[in-house]
Amino acid sequence: MKRVLPPNLTDREFDLALKAFAKVVGEDWVLASDQDRSTYADIYAPGPEDQWPPSGAIAPGSVAEVQEVVRIANRFKTPLWTVSRGKNLGYGAAAPRLPGALVLDLGRMNKVQHVDTELGYCVVEPGVSFFDLYEHLERMNANLMMSVPGNAWGSVMGNALDHGVGYTPYGLNARHICGMEVVMPDGGLMRTGMGAMEGNHSAHLFPFNYGPSWDQMFSQSNLGVVTSMGLWLMPQPETSLLLSMSVPNEEDIGWVIDTLTPLKIQGVIEQSIFVPSWLGKVVLMGTRKDFWDKPGRMPDWRVQEILKQNKLGFWTVGVRLYGDEAVVRAKADVVKRAFKRSTDIPMEESWWRQGEPVDVMDPSNGVPSAVALQMGDWVGGRSAHLGFSPVVPATSKHVLGQMRRSKKLIEDYDLDFYASFTIGGRFCNNINMLMYDRDDADGVRKVKALFDELIDVTRKAGYGEYRTHLNWMDPVAETFDFNDNAMTRYTEVIKDALDPNGILSPGKMGVWPAAYREHAQRGKHS
Amino acid sequence: MKRVLPPNLTDREFDLALKAFAKVVGEDWVLASDQDRSTYADIYAPGPEDQWPPSGAIAPGSVAEVQEVVRIANRFKTPLWTVSRGKNLGYGAAAPRLPGALVLDLGRMNKVQHVDTELGYCVVEPGVSFFDLYEHLERMNANLMMSVPGNAWGSVMGNALDHGVGYTPYGLNARHICGMEVVMPDGGLMRTGMGAMEGNHSAHLFPFNYGPSWDQMFSQSNLGVVTSMGLWLMPQPETSLLLSMSVPNEEDIGWVIDTLTPLKIQGVIEQSIFVPSWLGKVVLMGTRKDFWDKPGRMPDWRVQEILKQNKLGFWTVGVRLYGDEAVVRAKADVVKRAFKRSTDIPMEESWWRQGEPVDVMDPSNGVPSAVALQMGDWVGGRSAHLGFSPVVPATSKHVLGQMRRSKKLIEDYDLDFYASFTIGGRFCNNINMLMYDRDDADGVRKVKALFDELIDVTRKAGYGEYRTHLNWMDPVAETFDFNDNAMTRYTEVIKDALDPNGILSPGKMGVWPAAYREHAQRGKHS
Repeated sequence: MKRVLPPNLTDREFDLALKAFAKVVGEDWVLASDQDRSTYADIYAPGPEDQWPPSGAIAPGSVAEVQEVVRIANRFKTPLWTVSRGKNLGYGAAAPRLPGALVLDLGRMNKVQHVDTELGYCVVEPGVSFFDLYEHLERMNANLMMSVPGNAWGSVMGNALDHGVGYTPYGLNARHICGMEVVMPDGGLMRTGMGAMEGNHSAHLFPFNYGPSWDQMFSQSNLGVVTSMGLWLMPQPETSLLLSMSVPNEEDIGWVIDTLTPLKIQGVIEQSIFVPSWLGKVVLMGTRKDFWDKPGRMPDWRVQEILKQNKLGFWTVGVRLYGDEAVVRAKADVVKRAFKRSTDIPMEESWWRQGEPVDVMDPSNGVPSAVALQMGDWVGGRSAHLGFSPVVPATSKHVLGQMRRSKKLIEDYDLDFYASFTIGGRFCNNINMLMYDRDDADGVRKVKALFDELIDVTRKAGYGEYRTHLNWMDPVAETFDFNDNAMTRYTEVIKDALDPNGILSPGKMGVWPAAYREHAQRGKHS
Repeated sequence: MKRVLPPNLTDREFDLALKAFAKVVGEDWVLASDQDRSTYADIYAPGPEDQWPPSGAIAPGSVAEVQEVVRIANRFKTPLWTVSRGKNLGYGAAAPRLPGALVLDLGRMNKVQHVDTELGYCVVEPGVSFFDLYEHLERMNANLMMSVPGNAWGSVMGNALDHGVGYTPYGLNARHICGMEVVMPDGGLMRTGMGAMEGNHSAHLFPFNYGPSWDQMFSQSNLGVVTSMGLWLMPQPETSLLLSMSVPNEEDIGWVIDTLTPLKIQGVIEQSIFVPSWLGKVVLMGTRKDFWDKPGRMPDWRVQEILKQNKLGFWTVGVRLYGDEAVVRAKADVVKRAFKRSTDIPMEESWWRQGEPVDVMDPSNGVPSAVALQMGDWVGGRSAHLGFSPVVPATSKHVLGQMRRSKKLIEDYDLDFYASFTIGGRFCNNINMLMYDRDDADGVRKVKALFDELIDVTRKAGYGEYRTHLNWMDPVAETFDFNDNAMTRYTEVIKDALDPNGILSPGKMGVWPAAYREHAQRGKHS
């Protein structure tokens, strides 16, 4: 990818900045060749990658280097786009929201700084991947379980900070962050929580500050660069039991949610419960042309045929219970009784006991896997996907409404419907996977128009997205419209106070610093 | 209490401000007589109340009035000290940190705006007391359980925002806040979380914002005035079972914690577990002179006698399990097995089933009670108390160290030792109750010197307080000393950006706006 400069900088100024950065991190870690830029582009970009072009990347190796890089960025006015490992596929990967921002790649900072097996937590740096942490815990025989996303090739920290979800009782990953070290936009270093006291023993145990609590202000955030954080880990249970069933019809999601949510709120089910539609299973069995070789969405008769041939329901329900065997048994009875009130379909039971091998295809086991990446091959060509991800209350009324609304629109655009609902408490994360071939310009245009419309109709119905791709960060921020977008406005007051030069991740989630606010795509869509 | 003006204001300017406030809230709700000032003083003040004198109080009745009051306060430079109901005994009650600030009393805003029985949450205004909410839930037969503090006469919101603790599975009250409406320091209105979208159905369900999450920035905070908030409520369980025992010796707290913490982290015990020392029981049986009529601390032989006569241990352990009867039975077996590994003392069992009356003396039942207020009479005279409240990791090593350290110091000062440890997760809140007669000037001096020293030795050992009385807000803030008190410094950058006139609660938790920063007691103690 050709050189793209940060806004308002000349080639000469930019080169001077790169030289200054190289003095800090070493020349090898200033990455600004054409090839480097391609490496940091959005490889799933809906449309040409040069819509979100980095000017290059800098990869510091220590907290002190991050601090110095941030100070230099202030001096030269070179905006930085922070990524942990840059694997955020479907949301922009490593690419920056602001064209020409330099990617601040924290992947080299990949130490597991600490694991406490007694109190169940770890302290990780941004570059630690789920696989790194898993191996670390295995090596030390820590007897702690991770919460992993479906595709676990990314950063533990990046996932938690971006509100990614897992499927164990610790599935609300961001809620298990506790105590951070953060490089602030002026290059100063801050610690949150009890760790704001040097040497405090409860730095990663107590989830509040003395005074206003900061941790969550650094999630989905451009207010600082998190260089390490505490993350609570669940003790390995003695046993776990998977109760599963397939339910045949799309409308069954209604009673499924109304059965599961009370059990989740009562604490009978502790995990975040994942309910994917059939295509979630079928993408792992092959590519689209193995099932349907014509353009446009699969017709309903063919979907029914595939379900029948593969003994699949429209939705798959899997509930995993964790703990002492007798407790799990008693809970399983409660779950089974609840399902019996709505269906005669029997639940399959599958026990796991400590020491036994686990099914890595099932993220509720807390073992990282990249199998879900296979979805990337579904469409064929330079296959990619976007996730349209609204939050809905975990009741049939809202879930059915959301399912019908997005399904109709997705099918109006002639795309296959592929959704999941994950019950994380009193709400569901609804992910609608939109898959496309990046080389099919018409298809990409269609997907983008669909995405615009999904945001609009969903907002009109009273729901918002929890996360989105670079291309829609501003439009989604605009849907948070109470009192003239007060939340974004006040966040920007803070942004300007902490980051007067607008150095850190301008535009992240629609939060713009004064210095680059004219780049916000407000009042217009893609 | 005689009139005390806000800093830098003349009588005439102050009177003009009061008139302007009266136009908004009505003359009846501008409270600035000598008697009014006494009403809003710290009735438990360690020393004369006029150390923390309000200039008066204003009690708005609606969000619009709060907004207008804040705008007028900006115009006249009258600092406001926000209280929900002002019942924060032991921490300053309604009194302001900055002498002459006007108390912004939100007690009139006392509507339960909404209760959702299906998804288990309520939306409350600041003036809603625990008793109000309890009666509201009872009246509507909501089948939802509250998390209540030991003494429940205060505000539900005030308690949660100040990181107060309860003793049910929802005992970490601040973690169950979800979605707020906040009047900002410029008088603008903001909503957090999904509620930042007008009409969003998940406003009180999803615990994050799109972008940086604000909720916890408004806890223990002077960055805004919270006018309503969502709070998750637990579904009434089918049954609950109290397992209890007395343990004889002070050092037993070590194995007790090491037994309980793993069960808490594994999720076998869901509640926040309260372990009080013997005096917590004895204060409810009478006043001090009924047990010991000499000055100075009770000698150990007398303590042993009291324990024997009343069949008490040094510590009382009460574990309550909640839920389906079979699940509770299975969990109880796990708990009993764990205790058997350390003691032969049998656990008493006491079942509760839905529909049965509950013991209101036990806050783990979630029923509000003010019985704990009786502690206020213990010492005699104008009896009062302070809580010294550090957070320690929930392991024997840290808990024993903390117990020995504070016990020795408290006894060196010739005071009775009265402590509790509440396991809220991976940490304990340790509360050391210091009781004194406000009219005993020598005793008050002693308690204050003790408090100073407790802060110092505890900080030196690597622990910090989670909450403190007005008099020590600055010294405790100073103990959070990482990188030249970075946390407080950056919080103050935000404070100044949002609140350039320093109107809202200057000095709260040691966070000072530029306008009044010279009032901070930095580098010196009481």
